[in-house]
Amino acid sequence: MAFLNDNYLKLKAGYLFPEIGRRVKVFCEANPEAARRLIRCGIGDVTEPLPPACIAAMHQAVDEMGARETFHGYGPEQGYEWLRVAIAQHDFRARGIEVADDEIFVSDGSKCDCGNILDILGHKNKIAISDPVYPVYVDTNVMAGHTGPGNEAGAYGKIVYLPCTPRNGFIPQPPRRKVDLIYLCSPNNPTGAAATRAQLEAWVNYALANQAIILFDAAYEAYITDPALPHSIFEIPGARDCAIEFRSFSKHGGFTGTRCAFTIVPKTLLASTAAGERKALHPLWLRRMTTKFNGVSYPVQRAAEALYSPDGKAQVRALIEHYMGNARALVAGAKAAGLKVFGGVNAPYIWVQTPKGVTSWQVFDKVLGEANVVITPGSGFGSKGESYFRISAFNSRANAEEVARRLQELKW
Amino acid sequence: MAFLNDNYLKLKAGYLFPEIGRRVKVFCEANPEAARRLIRCGIGDVTEPLPPACIAAMHQAVDEMGARETFHGYGPEQGYEWLRVAIAQHDFRARGIEVADDEIFVSDGSKCDCGNILDILGHKNKIAISDPVYPVYVDTNVMAGHTGPGNEAGAYGKIVYLPCTPRNGFIPQPPRRKVDLIYLCSPNNPTGAAATRAQLEAWVNYALANQAIILFDAAYEAYITDPALPHSIFEIPGARDCAIEFRSFSKHGGFTGTRCAFTIVPKTLLASTAAGERKALHPLWLRRMTTKFNGVSYPVQRAAEALYSPDGKAQVRALIEHYMGNARALVAGAKAAGLKVFGGVNAPYIWVQTPKGVTSWQVFDKVLGEANVVITPGSGFGSKGESYFRISAFNSRANAEEVARRLQELKW
Repeated sequence: MAFLNDNYLKLKAGYLFPEIGRRVKVFCEANPEAARRLIRCGIGDVTEPLPPACIAAMHQAVDEMGARETFHGYGPEQGYEWLRVAIAQHDFRARGIEVADDEIFVSDGSKCDCGNILDILGHKNKIAISDPVYPVYVDTNVMAGHTGPGNEAGAYGKIVYLPCTPRNGFIPQPPRRKVDLIYLCSPNNPTGAAATRAQLEAWVNYALANQAIILFDAAYEAYITDPALPHSIFEIPGARDCAIEFRSFSKHGGFTGTRCAFTIVPKTLLASTAAGERKALHPLWLRRMTTKFNGVSYPVQRAAEALYSPDGKAQVRALIEHYMGNARALVAGAKAAGLKVFGGVNAPYIWVQTPKGVTSWQVFDKVLGEANVVITPGSGFGSKGESYFRISAFNSRANAEEVARRLQELKW
Repeated sequence: MAFLNDNYLKLKAGYLFPEIGRRVKVFCEANPEAARRLIRCGIGDVTEPLPPACIAAMHQAVDEMGARETFHGYGPEQGYEWLRVAIAQHDFRARGIEVADDEIFVSDGSKCDCGNILDILGHKNKIAISDPVYPVYVDTNVMAGHTGPGNEAGAYGKIVYLPCTPRNGFIPQPPRRKVDLIYLCSPNNPTGAAATRAQLEAWVNYALANQAIILFDAAYEAYITDPALPHSIFEIPGARDCAIEFRSFSKHGGFTGTRCAFTIVPKTLLASTAAGERKALHPLWLRRMTTKFNGVSYPVQRAAEALYSPDGKAQVRALIEHYMGNARALVAGAKAAGLKVFGGVNAPYIWVQTPKGVTSWQVFDKVLGEANVVITPGSGFGSKGESYFRISAFNSRANAEEVARRLQELKW
């Protein structure tokens, strides 16, 4: 008799964004007039086209795939060397950060990597996760059987939640108790908060002292505007011995539909066997990728490489300035509407407090129904997100400005 | 203290194909002259360019990604509806096989799907795997902790191996004992054997009687030349209640470097909770894909769709005829060399018995060193593959004919 994985039955409702999509669809079908003026600021999906440098690189790569002499079959599962070199050089070594080419693993998405990383880690680890946070960290731990059942608010047993509140500037401090795996996301999705060097140093010191591992999601690092803030956990001394970093081309390159990301696993990072022997994780991740993955599409890797060309870099910069201009308009609009607003300075997300006594799904329904704008209810990111909602700055300038206006027209 | 997944330490050596790559590299660096006449018939990687229909579709899709109005961000994680419809219609319903559009899950590769499917299945399942077979089935079960340690020959405890030998035509029969998950691959990699309808009926009947699940890998179905042979497990009555099928665009569409595949999970397929309640697996796989995956690159999905156009179909047919022409040449050459040869009729692989007393890695070294041809040692596919080697028909016609000649020149 074949058994299923019972842990899946612990998961609450659907994954957040498909659930939002479902509600929006129902609303639009019932209100075709409102549907025509709908503006989506829910899912953090880019709206602007791929940079021209990527388009040119992809066309060329597609032509290569059409001729026997230049055709590419299976590539290295961990990514083509030219892309790994470009990443390590431009994103790290040029900024004085030590990362070797073969510590870069190219993948089809950070969502995949954040989930798949659990494959190489043991089941006995004590897991700490910020609350609120990108739901994938929690959900993949539920699926892997690392949690107890969930409660009404969506919190699961055995996970150590690290509350992110206005009091700590939405950046959690290391806990007093011992944990083994820590998920950090900075700049943060959904709160838009970005950790300072001192805050990351505190985490690295904690991880080193406890032989813990930090899973550092830096998918939004390109949106940091404050020059004092670190872009990578590996800017912090000691991090090569206690951290894995996830990066993505989705948000700054506009690759959400093109699919390319990468993960850095330092060769100096160790973890313990059940018997207490310390071993490197790098060969395990390499084995995982070569066995359960077959590399990223060749034309997509060429497109990613093009982001590092001089033209590509300038085009990425323009994209970020565009979205951060939206963020400024949204922050100003939400503030003018009398709302308490966080984020939007070092991240493309605006984190807004709901009016007293109003749940985040109630705000979702109100903003959808009355302003015809899709936002993301904070409770979808964890129980501590309940009194907040997220507005995404990924949109056209006209839409962002229109949303800023509509927020002010709403009766809060 | 962070723990690693100890199960990875049970894995023997590297994954087969990276190991072959390593040996070939060492040989070529030491023998630059021989390296120039090297012909690769090892890894089953296509050599011919993508069909022109795909190239045209990808160019158009890339242009769409370059303009705001036609840009595509996140797509549905399980694939665009137009691709799922095309697959279900052309590959199944047009052949009288019942498969719904939303039972198709588009992914970036069958290798990924074959490994990831274990995510939704329990740890208590008794696993049966053909021997020899595509190494991913075994390795992913080792990683998931479903096996005991491996022995010298590469066989792992707890797995029920189903020997594939000349005696059963390399198609295993259902075992007397009860197993819960059965990996079948037909047409088979590496043996080239394809199951008959009666053989698959026996498996479906066994699975239904034992509430077992068949994981059916049909990556090579397009290479079937015998019209009496089934292309899909779902041609067998009852299979919708006991089977998952994996399909790929890699081998007939030439997508090994382009990356697209799909998996069919029928909504009628149930598995048991630990408490013995029977539940559908379809919602679990949907949850897995929406949580741990972000869909296939938009231009790649458009390329896959183009394979179903009239032009695309004709171009795929021509590709298959090309590779199967190679297979005929290789079968003839190996036979003329006095070798005992299997496969190569309904699959692009030729499975050759090694001379008595010679191991398959010895043949690998001999053929590499003396004929400068890369083959795959059978032992890499399991202990029952030890006295065989695999020749891949994925090559140019000239190379296939040259390999056929060199096999005859060798002193066996």
